[in-house]
Amino acid sequence: MLAEEAIEMAGKLYGISTGPGDPELLTLKAVRILSECGVIAAPRKPEGSSLALQIAGAAVDLSEKRMMLLDFPMTRNRAVLTENFDRIASQLCDVLQHADIAMLCLGDISLYATFPEIGKRVAAKGFEVETVSGVPSFCAAASRAGLPLVSADEPFQVLPYGCPDFAERLSLSGAKIILKCGSHMPELRVLLQKLGLLERSYAVENCGLENECLYPELPEKACGYFTVVCILPERLDV
Amino acid sequence: MLAEEAIEMAGKLYGISTGPGDPELLTLKAVRILSECGVIAAPRKPEGSSLALQIAGAAVDLSEKRMMLLDFPMTRNRAVLTENFDRIASQLCDVLQHADIAMLCLGDISLYATFPEIGKRVAAKGFEVETVSGVPSFCAAASRAGLPLVSADEPFQVLPYGCPDFAERLSLSGAKIILKCGSHMPELRVLLQKLGLLERSYAVENCGLENECLYPELPEKACGYFTVVCILPERLDV
Repeated sequence: MLAEEAIEMAGKLYGISTGPGDPELLTLKAVRILSECGVIAAPRKPEGSSLALQIAGAAVDLSEKRMMLLDFPMTRNRAVLTENFDRIASQLCDVLQHADIAMLCLGDISLYATFPEIGKRVAAKGFEVETVSGVPSFCAAASRAGLPLVSADEPFQVLPYGCPDFAERLSLSGAKIILKCGSHMPELRVLLQKLGLLERSYAVENCGLENECLYPELPEKACGYFTVVCILPERLDV
Repeated sequence: MLAEEAIEMAGKLYGISTGPGDPELLTLKAVRILSECGVIAAPRKPEGSSLALQIAGAAVDLSEKRMMLLDFPMTRNRAVLTENFDRIASQLCDVLQHADIAMLCLGDISLYATFPEIGKRVAAKGFEVETVSGVPSFCAAASRAGLPLVSADEPFQVLPYGCPDFAERLSLSGAKIILKCGSHMPELRVLLQKLGLLERSYAVENCGLENECLYPELPEKACGYFTVVCILPERLDV
């Protein structure tokens, strides 16, 4: 833990939502904080590119910033993940001794982001942490399709593909969003057909990015990781 | 319907999400379109004020704009609502003959907004309609509390208070958001206690507004309309 006077001098860690892809969907707050911070941290893919950085960089001039590109191993091994979170938090804390850091996060930072794992470790070391919320992918997908998700007292569910009780949850009334389903699209299509939901389903792949694709009907082929499936509620006036 | 040459001359209707309250949570796209449009439309309360306009006006200079303040009667009478939607759409179409209009909407425009009712009527008259998504209230509430809602394959539900099968849905695993529950807080508290969910619940009232209030535990009193209740998932490491 930092001593009290050290905390006053130390930098702050900001978790910044970039939204799903369109750089214009960054919030004013995200832009302000990115402009003010000297150091930008962002996850990068194994080959080195960073989608979050690409999105934010199209909205804010980051050319003069110090960059920290972070590696997150693609594994479910809890020990490996924990060790990596500890390592990244430690790297960030070293820099936070003398500078603010804005760490980028795709979509909204409260939904399925890895930032919280880093943020809680950094906070435990005595540094201040603040998050800035953003536009979730499913909101942008619905807007792109021009089809509102819910109105009045309709409930909705957000379901990562294959989550506990997946088919039972899909069978409940109301709107449904399915995430992380791109590579499973063929099986998902079969399941939704069986449940009578296929005709009310559409998909948006890479919403707001250059390779965006709207599927008014679900495709029979696998799609990319950033694919959102929306299932409209059983409204009379759809 | 408009004739083809009239469509080319005619204005466009934009549905603009303002986010939940903090003017800094407007997106760059919302700000750009608000700056470009000569006419701003916004719902107003019976006494005349407009929260959406107040939020947007704190982010963009709207002083030179033509304002259209719209009245939405607080009723569930379908005939009255339909007549009112028709009337508002007709007012907007008159203006769209010669100007673009940006119509404001609290939160995100795909979630529980009245804009779609107006938008589809205006589109049916042959005018172009485009929506800009925004930050939903529950994302901002989670960020305000510093408690991420979901991670990994955790599902989440958004439930308007008293929606069909409300108690059964609350009993499902995963995170839950309850909307439109402010005035029902005392009953909701009793229900969540009965379901064993009270200890994982918190509320944010008027998130991002001057009178914002974070309740780490649900209050026993009724709260305002803009109150979001978040119920954290049954994670081991919360």
